Amino acid sequence: MAKVAVLGYGTVGSGVVDVLDNNALEIEKSAGEKLELKYILDLRDFPGDKHETQVVHDINIILDDPEIEVICETMGGLEPAFSFEKSALERGKSVCTSNKELVAVHGPELVELAKKNGASYLFEASVGGGIPLLRTINDSLKHEKIDSITGILNGTTNYILTKMDKEGIGFATVLKAAQDKGYAEKNPEADVEGYDACRKIAILSSLMSGKHVNYEDIYTEGISRISIEDFAYARKLGMSIKLLGMCRKNENGFFSIVAPFLIPDENPLANVNGVFNAINVHGNMVGDVMFYGRGAGKNATASAVVADVIDIIKHKGKHINVNMNAEKAVLSPKDNAVRKFFVRVPSENKEQAYDVFGQGIVEVTSENVYNEFAFITDDISEKDFDEKLWRFDSVKGYIRLY
Amino acid sequence: MAKVAVLGYGTVGSGVVDVLDNNALEIEKSAGEKLELKYILDLRDFPGDKHETQVVHDINIILDDPEIEVICETMGGLEPAFSFEKSALERGKSVCTSNKELVAVHGPELVELAKKNGASYLFEASVGGGIPLLRTINDSLKHEKIDSITGILNGTTNYILTKMDKEGIGFATVLKAAQDKGYAEKNPEADVEGYDACRKIAILSSLMSGKHVNYEDIYTEGISRISIEDFAYARKLGMSIKLLGMCRKNENGFFSIVAPFLIPDENPLANVNGVFNAINVHGNMVGDVMFYGRGAGKNATASAVVADVIDIIKHKGKHINVNMNAEKAVLSPKDNAVRKFFVRVPSENKEQAYDVFGQGIVEVTSENVYNEFAFITDDISEKDFDEKLWRFDSVKGYIRLY
Repeated sequence: MAKVAVLGYGTVGSGVVDVLDNNALEIEKSAGEKLELKYILDLRDFPGDKHETQVVHDINIILDDPEIEVICETMGGLEPAFSFEKSALERGKSVCTSNKELVAVHGPELVELAKKNGASYLFEASVGGGIPLLRTINDSLKHEKIDSITGILNGTTNYILTKMDKEGIGFATVLKAAQDKGYAEKNPEADVEGYDACRKIAILSSLMSGKHVNYEDIYTEGISRISIEDFAYARKLGMSIKLLGMCRKNENGFFSIVAPFLIPDENPLANVNGVFNAINVHGNMVGDVMFYGRGAGKNATASAVVADVIDIIKHKGKHINVNMNAEKAVLSPKDNAVRKFFVRVPSENKEQAYDVFGQGIVEVTSENVYNEFAFITDDISEKDFDEKLWRFDSVKGYIRLY
Repeated sequence: MAKVAVLGYGTVGSGVVDVLDNNALEIEKSAGEKLELKYILDLRDFPGDKHETQVVHDINIILDDPEIEVICETMGGLEPAFSFEKSALERGKSVCTSNKELVAVHGPELVELAKKNGASYLFEASVGGGIPLLRTINDSLKHEKIDSITGILNGTTNYILTKMDKEGIGFATVLKAAQDKGYAEKNPEADVEGYDACRKIAILSSLMSGKHVNYEDIYTEGISRISIEDFAYARKLGMSIKLLGMCRKNENGFFSIVAPFLIPDENPLANVNGVFNAINVHGNMVGDVMFYGRGAGKNATASAVVADVIDIIKHKGKHINVNMNAEKAVLSPKDNAVRKFFVRVPSENKEQAYDVFGQGIVEVTSENVYNEFAFITDDISEKDFDEKLWRFDSVKGYIRLY
């Protein structure tokens, strides 16, 4: 019988408790022993709740209890979650969490702390919700030379982009509807500006590099400047527009970015719609492997937390190795990345477009958009593109090509 | 240093050797020790090959060598592969294989034999090629109540269906082109009649049920009767036609089938094109999780074999539990499965169609197909559908709806 504590009885925390209740037999079969929920830490009381007697308000009750082997931190935010996790690991208790913010900022040092204390620190639920991604990278694909990870990592923005695409409705209107439905936060910045996807690709970049990739070093663009005209062109091109988080090895090390990309419809990422997430991992021998599922949601995320708990119980007394340490990773500069760009300028700048970007640009037209000149550049570095774009008085928009 | 033998130096076997060579460092990091390829069993010699000195012709050299801990069986076929695997397991050597035929027929008894001898029997590469599927079901998703597994499990048929769909070319012509390109075998029966997909869904059905599902008990239809007219209708319906292997829990136990299905374009399986495979697993808490990748090919398949080798080395001296035993599973009869069907009959049978299937049927038209009446039935059991279909003198075709 292994004893578990859950910190935070909110959406994910109560989901974890539900999974422990509903799937107790399957969990026992998988872990090799019964799991018992001994404490739930929360500031609130939950009178009438099935688990009300397990609710405590003082973290020390949990930390001081030698029976507790695993702590699920499902509070979110940096503090007090960070202090609680650190204290638990220092006492040799293993921790698993869905807290992507905390993992992005402190994950690598917490992995090291876990190792030092013979405990484990796992965070499957922090990226891709219920999708069994991190364990697969860390386990089934660990013998691969992984040279890129590319993902649709945020369900809210993917829902918005899908609606804009399929229904031809503008960003602001779709966002409002998403907020009314509870698919987007009242303050949607973290999602629509790409910050959430940035935390997640930072975690994946750290795993890929084995070092600590600071999310603040990752160039991040959101989706708020994507318009229905962009989708009209995309359809014409046989492409889709998706907010991608991307981490790629190159000659100089590796490079991460979060931005909207035009993706050809043949690419399976182009067909990931609605609130779903998908992550493509490319290994030198296996080629492309893609994982798809709900990137958020109570039960899916909770299922991933419980998978970590089981892994910890199965490896009792052992540190489960995670390919990450606290050494700072140096990303190769965005400036050097070479790609094609889709650009829209006013009609009167057509000649200038050829002058600035050369005769090799390819014009794109759409029946539904007038009074502008849209084109795709040749391969060009981000730095050169930036410089050339500044020469125009007015630019209606641009999107990178995948 | 763990010592490994490869049986069969063909496509997959030589891929395994390549992975061991190319990714030696990553493999050591993952397994916790170096892996050494000690023997390659093959009838042929390979003069000039990098590994020519490791080639042996007598299985007993391998079986009698106490240093050999893991055997990769990449010969294919039932015999002598079965005898070789059995002898290895009886001597406590672990076995991993890509041999789907053998796993479908003898997998469960070999798992039991491995357990009895403190060895492991793994077969990740037998389903979905390089896709890390079985380990994920057996590990990250083991605490889920999995109620369905649905997959595009055969790359050749998916390539043919994709070509028919995108280019409007008939089955026979596409098959011929696929054979010329080496995507389809000269004798294509195993692929196009669904036998290969049937072996794979049998393995997945066994894993899901924990018993032995005999592939001969699984109702199997291939794709040879799918026409470009079917695709014209499918496009009109916003659907795609895919050969699916499916295993579903129902009130009476569970049910497996291999057949072409019409799938709505919103379903990610509808967008899996070309030689790719994809498998959707549905769990009670995690919901839908889909895995996508190359279902065949030397390096992808070999990478999955090596992942098994590493797993075995990491769990040295332990039996890795696989949810399968030799007890025969009883599938619930196909007759009871209820679904909608798409049916095409000659124009003159329109009235009869309403008479037989009721007024609730929905007519489907396509600009490109004449002189026939196409419709979608209401929900109906397979048995009732069969009976009703027999009442028509002539049926141009039917496809199940997903």
